[in-house]
Amino acid sequence: MSKPAPKAAGRITLLTDFGTRDGYVAAMRGVIASLAPQTVVEDASHDVPAGDVAAAAWALGSYWHLYPAGTVHVAVVDPGVGSERRALAAEVDGRFFVAPDNGVLTRVLVAAAAPRLVGLAETAFMRDVVSATFHGRDIFAPVAAHLAMGVPLDHLGPPLADPVRLEMLVPARTGDVIRGQVVHIDRFGNLITNVPADWVGPHARVRFGAADLGEVRLTYSDVQTGHAVALIGSSGHLEIGVRDGNAAKVLWKGRGTEVVVER
Amino acid sequence: MSKPAPKAAGRITLLTDFGTRDGYVAAMRGVIASLAPQTVVEDASHDVPAGDVAAAAWALGSYWHLYPAGTVHVAVVDPGVGSERRALAAEVDGRFFVAPDNGVLTRVLVAAAAPRLVGLAETAFMRDVVSATFHGRDIFAPVAAHLAMGVPLDHLGPPLADPVRLEMLVPARTGDVIRGQVVHIDRFGNLITNVPADWVGPHARVRFGAADLGEVRLTYSDVQTGHAVALIGSSGHLEIGVRDGNAAKVLWKGRGTEVVVER
Amino acid sequence: MSKPAPKAAGRITLLTDFGTRDGYVAAMRGVIASLAPQTVVEDASHDVPAGDVAAAAWALGSYWHLYPAGTVHVAVVDPGVGSERRALAAEVDGRFFVAPDNGVLTRVLVAAAAPRLVGLAETAFMRDVVSATFHGRDIFAPVAAHLAMGVPLDHLGPPLADPVRLEMLVPARTGDVIRGQVVHIDRFGNLITNVPADWVGPHARVRFGAADLGEVRLTYSDVQTGHAVALIGSSGHLEIGVRDGNAAKVLWKGRGTEVVVER
Repeated sequence: MSKPAPKAAGRITLLTDFGTRDGYVAAMRGVIASLAPQTVVEDASHDVPAGDVAAAAWALGSYWHLYPAGTVHVAVVDPGVGSERRALAAEVDGRFFVAPDNGVLTRVLVAAAAPRLVGLAETAFMRDVVSATFHGRDIFAPVAAHLAMGVPLDHLGPPLADPVRLEMLVPARTGDVIRGQVVHIDRFGNLITNVPADWVGPHARVRFGAADLGEVRLTYSDVQTGHAVALIGSSGHLEIGVRDGNAAKVLWKGRGTEVVVER
Repeated sequence: MSKPAPKAAGRITLLTDFGTRDGYVAAMRGVIASLAPQTVVEDASHDVPAGDVAAAAWALGSYWHLYPAGTVHVAVVDPGVGSERRALAAEVDGRFFVAPDNGVLTRVLVAAAAPRLVGLAETAFMRDVVSATFHGRDIFAPVAAHLAMGVPLDHLGPPLADPVRLEMLVPARTGDVIRGQVVHIDRFGNLITNVPADWVGPHARVRFGAADLGEVRLTYSDVQTGHAVALIGSSGHLEIGVRDGNAAKVLWKGRGTEVVVER
Repeated sequence: MSKPAPKAAGRITLLTDFGTRDGYVAAMRGVIASLAPQTVVEDASHDVPAGDVAAAAWALGSYWHLYPAGTVHVAVVDPGVGSERRALAAEVDGRFFVAPDNGVLTRVLVAAAAPRLVGLAETAFMRDVVSATFHGRDIFAPVAAHLAMGVPLDHLGPPLADPVRLEMLVPARTGDVIRGQVVHIDRFGNLITNVPADWVGPHARVRFGAADLGEVRLTYSDVQTGHAVALIGSSGHLEIGVRDGNAAKVLWKGRGTEVVVER
């Protein structure tokens, strides 16, 4: 197990919707530990809502670039496992990715000037027997282990030019009016929109459904407990929360809900 | 702290029903970090249903052999902590195990030609004060740390010949009819049975309670959304699922439910 | 990235209420991996109830001292993020801490003869842009990485003399009667009190609300399934449980409930 490639940092992150209690994640970790025992394996999350590719794509989009170059990010939220959906590996801005080709990389590819993508085809980098239902263990984990050890991306399979991308809601500006949408709800119930911070000027006012949320604030503490607030969240987008409360439950809103900002 | 034993890989996995929020798992990790700071500690799961030894045994059975030889697997689902139940360590096929003697190793021992088992007796490898209610921190974590550093198994205590084993449901064949049972329900609600893949021929038909599930399929995608499907799951056994749904909830079935396969 | 300080063990633990599914924890891990790639990062928990500083303080109090000297413990349960609440770092008994100044260190500081505390002020040890809502990623993670690499505590900011402390319920003794309170409920529903083990003699009797729990027992197994039991728990305090059940649910009691012990 030589380590020829300078870009291989020997670090793998795992993002799945497997939960941990059935041992599926530990199986992936065991496969990696056997192939690449020196590699550091970090759990990004195993609590993505089951089958929710959009939520996985959002989470991955929030951390992949914070890791050092050479990190291998594995993302297995894969309701189509065993069907004809393809599997892929990619390199974007020095980080590597291993995932089903179902859109889970959408928010990574958006950021990429020149992504390199390959379809996973070379079985030498997979387990000897590949099951129909657990590609996390049989394909994605061993491929990630080989990437972390320095196997070049283009050894894994042929170039893949047309990765599946999720349809992304796009905010619109007309004069001083911005119309955006909720694109993610986090575990605190905060409603995160697609309106970027630099579109939102000081003193902009926010309407959300029938509610006038007033001016954009700096922090949750700028309103009273139980009140709704619009602010720029940690992802650099407008988000709507309730101080010390769960906005998704209090306001009864979900993904896709429109938000209007007037500057 | 020398490292004499060649089998010690310096890797420990932890499987518990502690959850993480009370700091119980971190306490185990802290004990290991203090005794064996170079050892890699991996979380297998801390979300096993509270006190469910059978579920823990199933999970452990799915990953222990995928880790490299020398790995120390700790499994602490221990509703009888503080009672007269024994504590044990074992070596099976090059991997080590530390656990209460309550059957949690059942699916490991089934696979073992020649397991070596000892009862944990030597207090030099435990914490100075052993509480009545937290053997994870006071016994299992420090014993695992010592095993990972190369302490020989037989230094931990005397041989143990009669480990507790869970009663395991066994499938039966009569001519072309197989009768098995659901033995595990995973986090997706899939109902995993004890019918091994090589008993199930092509075109076998599956009945589950009053429902005729038709032929065994290859993947979930072979049926329509919301429909039940029987297929060979990642553990190499027949399992019953619902495409993009939760079979345990949709079909209202639990562990022990009979499945009939006609070849 | 030199490692000058002998106290830096290169180990960081993370305690948050972020859950993992949104990628917030992975963002913190990515920041640390980029700054201090050799550092071992361990998840203590990310499942602290949202905003529950007292629960986080209890958990941290149960494990911080079990880790080796030099460990950096990060605790980010931070409902006041972005407000005027301060951020701090501390050294207690050889371990380091990075946290908002909101009382989450209360149970660590109680144990400290001579804590050293500083307010986080030196922006060179933070991310270039600090958001208003995610100090875990932008302040606490990078500061912890620098501490783990050996940056001296007093480089981070000026001394801080008056850290916020949670009001702690204190048990009282009058003759042979002890009155204490439930201070934590763990994931099993066990009700953990503030009555220390060494106040409770043999054959002491415990009353809890209207219920007479009889004598303090050694383990859960000393009563029948479904029965309530008082015993000395793993934290070294009196706790009340229900054998094979959830005491908080069965007894309908919460934090603050009085317990009376008669010796």
